[in-house]
Amino acid sequence: MNLLDNVAIELPSWAFGNSGTRFKVFGTPGTPRTVEEKIADAATVHRFTGMAPTVALHIPWDRVDDYTALAAYAADHGVALGTINSNTFQDDDYKFGSLTHVDETVRKKAIDHHLACIEIMNQTGSQDLKIWLADGTNYPGQGDIRGRQDRLAESLAAIYQHIGEGQRMVLEYKFFEPAMYMTDVPDWGTSYAQVSALGDRAKVCLDTGHHAPGTNIEFIVAQLLRLGKLGSFDFNSRFYADDDLIVGAADPFQLFRIMFEVIRGGGLGKDSDLALMLDQCHNVEAKIPGQIRSVLNVAEMTARAQLVDADALTAAQEAGDVLGANEIFMDAFYTDVRPAMAQWRADRGLPENPMRAFAESGYQDTVVAERVGGTQSSWGA
Amino acid sequence: MNLLDNVAIELPSWAFGNSGTRFKVFGTPGTPRTVEEKIADAATVHRFTGMAPTVALHIPWDRVDDYTALAAYAADHGVALGTINSNTFQDDDYKFGSLTHVDETVRKKAIDHHLACIEIMNQTGSQDLKIWLADGTNYPGQGDIRGRQDRLAESLAAIYQHIGEGQRMVLEYKFFEPAMYMTDVPDWGTSYAQVSALGDRAKVCLDTGHHAPGTNIEFIVAQLLRLGKLGSFDFNSRFYADDDLIVGAADPFQLFRIMFEVIRGGGLGKDSDLALMLDQCHNVEAKIPGQIRSVLNVAEMTARAQLVDADALTAAQEAGDVLGANEIFMDAFYTDVRPAMAQWRADRGLPENPMRAFAESGYQDTVVAERVGGTQSSWGA
Amino acid sequence: MNLLDNVAIELPSWAFGNSGTRFKVFGTPGTPRTVEEKIADAATVHRFTGMAPTVALHIPWDRVDDYTALAAYAADHGVALGTINSNTFQDDDYKFGSLTHVDETVRKKAIDHHLACIEIMNQTGSQDLKIWLADGTNYPGQGDIRGRQDRLAESLAAIYQHIGEGQRMVLEYKFFEPAMYMTDVPDWGTSYAQVSALGDRAKVCLDTGHHAPGTNIEFIVAQLLRLGKLGSFDFNSRFYADDDLIVGAADPFQLFRIMFEVIRGGGLGKDSDLALMLDQCHNVEAKIPGQIRSVLNVAEMTARAQLVDADALTAAQEAGDVLGANEIFMDAFYTDVRPAMAQWRADRGLPENPMRAFAESGYQDTVVAERVGGTQSSWGA
Amino acid sequence: MNLLDNVAIELPSWAFGNSGTRFKVFGTPGTPRTVEEKIADAATVHRFTGMAPTVALHIPWDRVDDYTALAAYAADHGVALGTINSNTFQDDDYKFGSLTHVDETVRKKAIDHHLACIEIMNQTGSQDLKIWLADGTNYPGQGDIRGRQDRLAESLAAIYQHIGEGQRMVLEYKFFEPAMYMTDVPDWGTSYAQVSALGDRAKVCLDTGHHAPGTNIEFIVAQLLRLGKLGSFDFNSRFYADDDLIVGAADPFQLFRIMFEVIRGGGLGKDSDLALMLDQCHNVEAKIPGQIRSVLNVAEMTARAQLVDADALTAAQEAGDVLGANEIFMDAFYTDVRPAMAQWRADRGLPENPMRAFAESGYQDTVVAERVGGTQSSWGA
Repeated sequence: MNLLDNVAIELPSWAFGNSGTRFKVFGTPGTPRTVEEKIADAATVHRFTGMAPTVALHIPWDRVDDYTALAAYAADHGVALGTINSNTFQDDDYKFGSLTHVDETVRKKAIDHHLACIEIMNQTGSQDLKIWLADGTNYPGQGDIRGRQDRLAESLAAIYQHIGEGQRMVLEYKFFEPAMYMTDVPDWGTSYAQVSALGDRAKVCLDTGHHAPGTNIEFIVAQLLRLGKLGSFDFNSRFYADDDLIVGAADPFQLFRIMFEVIRGGGLGKDSDLALMLDQCHNVEAKIPGQIRSVLNVAEMTARAQLVDADALTAAQEAGDVLGANEIFMDAFYTDVRPAMAQWRADRGLPENPMRAFAESGYQDTVVAERVGGTQSSWGA
Repeated sequence: MNLLDNVAIELPSWAFGNSGTRFKVFGTPGTPRTVEEKIADAATVHRFTGMAPTVALHIPWDRVDDYTALAAYAADHGVALGTINSNTFQDDDYKFGSLTHVDETVRKKAIDHHLACIEIMNQTGSQDLKIWLADGTNYPGQGDIRGRQDRLAESLAAIYQHIGEGQRMVLEYKFFEPAMYMTDVPDWGTSYAQVSALGDRAKVCLDTGHHAPGTNIEFIVAQLLRLGKLGSFDFNSRFYADDDLIVGAADPFQLFRIMFEVIRGGGLGKDSDLALMLDQCHNVEAKIPGQIRSVLNVAEMTARAQLVDADALTAAQEAGDVLGANEIFMDAFYTDVRPAMAQWRADRGLPENPMRAFAESGYQDTVVAERVGGTQSSWGA
Repeated sequence: MNLLDNVAIELPSWAFGNSGTRFKVFGTPGTPRTVEEKIADAATVHRFTGMAPTVALHIPWDRVDDYTALAAYAADHGVALGTINSNTFQDDDYKFGSLTHVDETVRKKAIDHHLACIEIMNQTGSQDLKIWLADGTNYPGQGDIRGRQDRLAESLAAIYQHIGEGQRMVLEYKFFEPAMYMTDVPDWGTSYAQVSALGDRAKVCLDTGHHAPGTNIEFIVAQLLRLGKLGSFDFNSRFYADDDLIVGAADPFQLFRIMFEVIRGGGLGKDSDLALMLDQCHNVEAKIPGQIRSVLNVAEMTARAQLVDADALTAAQEAGDVLGANEIFMDAFYTDVRPAMAQWRADRGLPENPMRAFAESGYQDTVVAERVGGTQSSWGA
Repeated sequence: MNLLDNVAIELPSWAFGNSGTRFKVFGTPGTPRTVEEKIADAATVHRFTGMAPTVALHIPWDRVDDYTALAAYAADHGVALGTINSNTFQDDDYKFGSLTHVDETVRKKAIDHHLACIEIMNQTGSQDLKIWLADGTNYPGQGDIRGRQDRLAESLAAIYQHIGEGQRMVLEYKFFEPAMYMTDVPDWGTSYAQVSALGDRAKVCLDTGHHAPGTNIEFIVAQLLRLGKLGSFDFNSRFYADDDLIVGAADPFQLFRIMFEVIRGGGLGKDSDLALMLDQCHNVEAKIPGQIRSVLNVAEMTARAQLVDADALTAAQEAGDVLGANEIFMDAFYTDVRPAMAQWRADRGLPENPMRAFAESGYQDTVVAERVGGTQSSWGA
């Protein structure tokens, strides 16, 4: 099970804050009030799983005065700072777009925000600048689709020239929401066309919840790896839209197929720079165990995926043996890897059952007791 | 164009407050701070269109001490109070359900809230209690689908017995959101089965944005009218999910087909008690003109729908003349009714072009100037 | 594992014939030419799985002169004849509908066809008459939605009065195809409303591939069982539309959830008359093993579903422990039941590995050698 | 209305033959038996509309011995031969793929078929070779997604090197069907990536029915025109899947938006080589009038789209006037252009009402009388 040793899943700081729907955001006792508390929670997930060594930050939600100190704080807790996520969707200026806005002033503000993010990366040692845009329109005629795309290209180029050696820009696409009619980066094709125009350090970020109904996501994974342009994953799962549920919760077999194509395309190889990230909401479930469960789900489906007997599969495929090939594939999926995973953890000094170990650790009680007063973190801040 | 004389479109008070997505709610100058200001805005829409004589309230967002006074206030502004909408999704108690909750105490609280709404109806003279539930679950296994449905039936029965003569309960269904895995009233079949178990005063509310992709909504309209169970519409439009865009904005032809079936099924007849309501968000567009545009869209598609030559259509249908029947149908849709609608308005002393008339009225400037300070209304309050 | 003893999966005779898409139907050596050969193949599936004791017939595809003799032939092969499926979509008369047609002559022809099917049931001892209609329209305006629904009700009533004691009529719904704009029985609500108007012996048939994208099928299962109206399943799976793939192939977790609700709702109890049928196409894979695999998939997901610890699940649900409840649910799904299933089969004198046993049996080679000449069965005949 | 003078809509020869669903293909009196009869019907559509000057051929369905003679035949009837469509989905060899097949022999056969098509183009003077592939798989594990994509690239390169000066290869994508799990060219991104690797004469073909539910097609149009890679359209419309209904029939507003982006992106300019084709089925409606209606729909929505006041729209967009911009856009859509179109036709000596003129022409009666015996054309031949 050596591929598992290459699995490192980045946690999003915002998963530890409150989140919800447009109808309601429920708060919970013990929710972090500061970025340091979020990092402490993320480090806890790593301590129990051994597979979540980095934490992604969201600017401005995680803005601090001293990022070097923050990186040291993280290191003290056993994790590192990871991807820097920009935010150009919560200022009033961005009501009608950011990097695509018709007004050069607003575009410049949005570009400058990204340059500030790169500056943070320089201090934190982060590899990736992740750009997800809320840009789009709600009504036909509201915006000029073509002009917005051209302005997007210009804005991205302005940012990209500041991406340093060893740094990358990853451009996330999303089918819809918050824009309801037209999204400026709606699909992998658009992200691919835009990053291809920039250079080698620009890649696509694939969020598993950002596709049209029925989309074959593992095909996109295979295609982007083939094209050398899959930069990172935002893992989560969904039944309908961008539900942001725990990865693997809605369709574990889909996660298995995705991880199979990741392995098939070399995404877990020693030389791969593919980044695996979670991007989820825990609206009704406990947040820290929600992240532990998510890490376990990715790990377990990776373990199942690497059980596929590649030689036998190829032989069946080449023989046109549809049912035989499918059976070899499913045999891996249907195998219960949980005992082997428990052993893998035990061999590394980790708890065999991270969920139970966390529940018994008393960590949650401690933070509930300690984190009194202040304002709980959420998307709003 | 006499059917238009039967068209009365109820406006939702909350359409005049701020709304948005989980990512951001943008505020705008002039947004109402009180229910009275919302009613004033709604009355303005009626003054310019002549087709929006009632305003729906949402409890507790529109809670006041004296509903008789509020009704008088509305009457002074030329409108009446309409449907009372309950809200069992914003208290912490309702995190895991309301009328379906496993805990009898929570169910009782939710039932009592509806009884309080009925009490308000008694004071306002409202006909309809509208129930939309956020109840549902996010993860497989989280709840007992069957048990929740049984509890829903019990809770609805407890409420229904308080529905007075001349009052109705309408039960809205929704495909998903905010629940992401399982919604307790996801489709018209469920709403129909539940209200059929109650009695004649319980009916289905059809929100045009609450269906699975590709659903033929006009079929459901025809079916529910046939079954005598279509109580009311929540009009809006969507490209993807419950986008809550201006009705008719995403697919005007669909709105035409819906209004055709409404007419076909007697929903605009003198004896019909079918209620036409808007339920929309104006996240990025101006709110009062957004409502005016919505009223106009329903009116214009109704006008086009009643242009269908029913006899010719029947003859073509019975002859198996597919293209001929379709042409008769499309001929009505493709006819520009706007001049005739302008005349209809002029005949009634209304502005020929309500959008322009409102823009030139100075109303918006006035409320921007007057409504300074306080807290703008939104879903949160 | 006693619930498995109650699992009986009916096989469709047409699954053994050739099928395909509108683009191409591929033939394969050994495909049956007669209904007897189809029954022989179906009996083979039962011989290797022990769970497929009946074969559904499709009229006129499986029309014979002597159904008593056919039943005896089946019995000789160890199986019984099951559901009779009507066909009102392949005669030129039915181009614009059958039970819903505007022309009374065509409706009468379609009704008479169903009476003939009931007569066959009387001879074969079949319990169920299954009605799936291709009725619908391709273009807005082509047909009168309301009128078609009224005629459907009349036609069904005319058939229903001939349904004998101990017989049932099950009405299948389908989202779309072959009709592209409007389908006369598009959803469970319509089927439920129609069969409820008839009586206790009329029930709904749920085909797992006949829903809008994203539909929560297990909810419908739970609801129809609750309403006492789930008559039968047509099992298959799909990624996009009515793909008619092997059940459980596209989303095994969904099949697990469906079987969980079947068990939860008493559908596998001793007193249940719920019928489990396959309705699939084997366009590119081998047919007999395709059916064996399908039976195994249903069996294995049933086995997993009954592993759910119901008491623990209820406790977690009532405690609002979202992750705990989900874990209990998933624990059953993630358990590899294949060894236990092999033992279950061994205990009953069945092959532990039915797929391998069939492959090694030489049956396929025999039928390829024997079935030379004639016309292979397909949907066309 | 000068842009209309640039509109030339290519008709598919197969639209005049019989087509249907996997359930049934209905025949109709007068259906062509030969390619010459199909061309005669297509020429009739052009004679009545003045906008359909070319006919696309499908090989082998339209295979003849002498293509020069066929081109002359077409010219005698007033039309020219257009796009050559290849077919690698109906031979038994292609059951598991064509250009992507694991077997080099099959790939070579498929490549050679395309070279034969290019040879036909050389004789007919056709500009475009259109490649639509049925390649894909039905079950997870059945094929190697990555390997298939690599082989596709090799096969396309082998074909592309034979594409002559003045010729183009257009690669069509399709979301699903006939493959049910994985399609080798499922989306515009894949087609774009593949043709970009080839050269300037390789472009994307956009079939309006080949997208996931909810896809914003006009965005793709704008994007591909921006990238210089939109080669051609296959026009049709759909409610659900690849319904292949008459273009504009399901959602005329969508067609309007598409044509608006075509105009916006220069696709109707004098220098544009964008090809507009129909690709439809007429399963239940009359075929020749079905094609006339389709041509009219494209023409009328083009006429409406060019009515958009571009300067006013830009001003409203730049001012952030959402409702104003939308109104300008909708004002064009809501304008009834049919009188102006009738005049446009009258000015060119064409019938003002092509549908009625065709009905009154007696053409249909003539071909019904003449085309007796023989085998009606369909997808099968």
